[in-house]
Amino acid sequence: MRRFVVIGQQATAAGDFLLIDVAGTSGRLDVLLRCLRAALLVSHGLRRDTVVYLVLLGGPRAPRVVRVDGSAIRFVRPDERSLGVMVQKALEAGLEGCGFVEIRSGLAVAEGGLDAVLADLPAGSVATSYVLDEGAPDIRDAAIDVREPVFFVGDHLGFDDESRLMLAAHGVTRVGLGPVSVHAEDAITLVCNELDRRGA
Amino acid sequence: MRRFVVIGQQATAAGDFLLIDVAGTSGRLDVLLRCLRAALLVSHGLRRDTVVYLVLLGGPRAPRVVRVDGSAIRFVRPDERSLGVMVQKALEAGLEGCGFVEIRSGLAVAEGGLDAVLADLPAGSVATSYVLDEGAPDIRDAAIDVREPVFFVGDHLGFDDESRLMLAAHGVTRVGLGPVSVHAEDAITLVCNELDRRGA
Repeated sequence: MRRFVVIGQQATAAGDFLLIDVAGTSGRLDVLLRCLRAALLVSHGLRRDTVVYLVLLGGPRAPRVVRVDGSAIRFVRPDERSLGVMVQKALEAGLEGCGFVEIRSGLAVAEGGLDAVLADLPAGSVATSYVLDEGAPDIRDAAIDVREPVFFVGDHLGFDDESRLMLAAHGVTRVGLGPVSVHAEDAITLVCNELDRRGA
Repeated sequence: MRRFVVIGQQATAAGDFLLIDVAGTSGRLDVLLRCLRAALLVSHGLRRDTVVYLVLLGGPRAPRVVRVDGSAIRFVRPDERSLGVMVQKALEAGLEGCGFVEIRSGLAVAEGGLDAVLADLPAGSVATSYVLDEGAPDIRDAAIDVREPVFFVGDHLGFDDESRLMLAAHGVTRVGLGPVSVHAEDAITLVCNELDRRGA
């Protein structure tokens, strides 16, 4: 299973954003919605081998994490509005219990931030965890585990200090994607393509 | 200058789609809007060396082409709604004259389809024209002109027969992007990264 963890420094953990203006009312949750599409969807299909975590660190309900599991989710559409509806419903649902609580098949929410994600990763994932970072060694030349990789991705603001410290403590390997600094969703697209090529 | 030509088989050439539901009311113009972002925007910046043509073959006002010139456009935001507003304004503006008529700096509209694009390309572009096609030789191994390349991209429906014939007559070179068929916007992201690496 491939895993992508996208950290939204100001992305709202509450469901009260406006679908007509997600970018302007959600702490730029739109960036994370586009990451969902890039990680999960291919031409006329869904990547069943992929799980995406959206770490929402913004607003009064933060921190919370939305988890979308490609092996179980259904009816994922690529446009930002549809993805916004899906995440909004997840955030508005009442939560009970600890850890990830499933809202519907393949869609779950947890209280907590990056710590909740790290607790949810399979044992041994430390050895196969990567962080996408400008100026790091090129992914094309890097040894990447294609079976159980976990990629940590910053949003348009990069990584906050606390997340950086947690990732360093987790023991991630830094990888880069080329000479130009790209959007988070493009970074995910480039990683998926590299994994596709190695797995083919 | 890099050029991307995205062909929307059913994407509306009229501006009467709903911003609250672009995907459901525009013949999937949302696909082309995401292509705009992928081609033009990088982290905290705009690719000044890139021109994007959206070929709109759907609806009663078709065919028309929207051209966005990265060297002159301003205030491009990455979210689908903002991009939808920009394209809607272009399509609603009255047109006079032939060829591309500028609506505002960097944003122009022309009557016509792929023919209008081909007429707008610089002389000699035949030698540097590529079409992204599944199963074609891998772009990583292909000889690509990095100074003046033109990439033709199909939407979620691929290419219509007439476009295929016109591209074949134009003399394009087929290139592929790996073993998995990806969305049009992801294809553009992958091409941009390859060009960035070669130009670095």
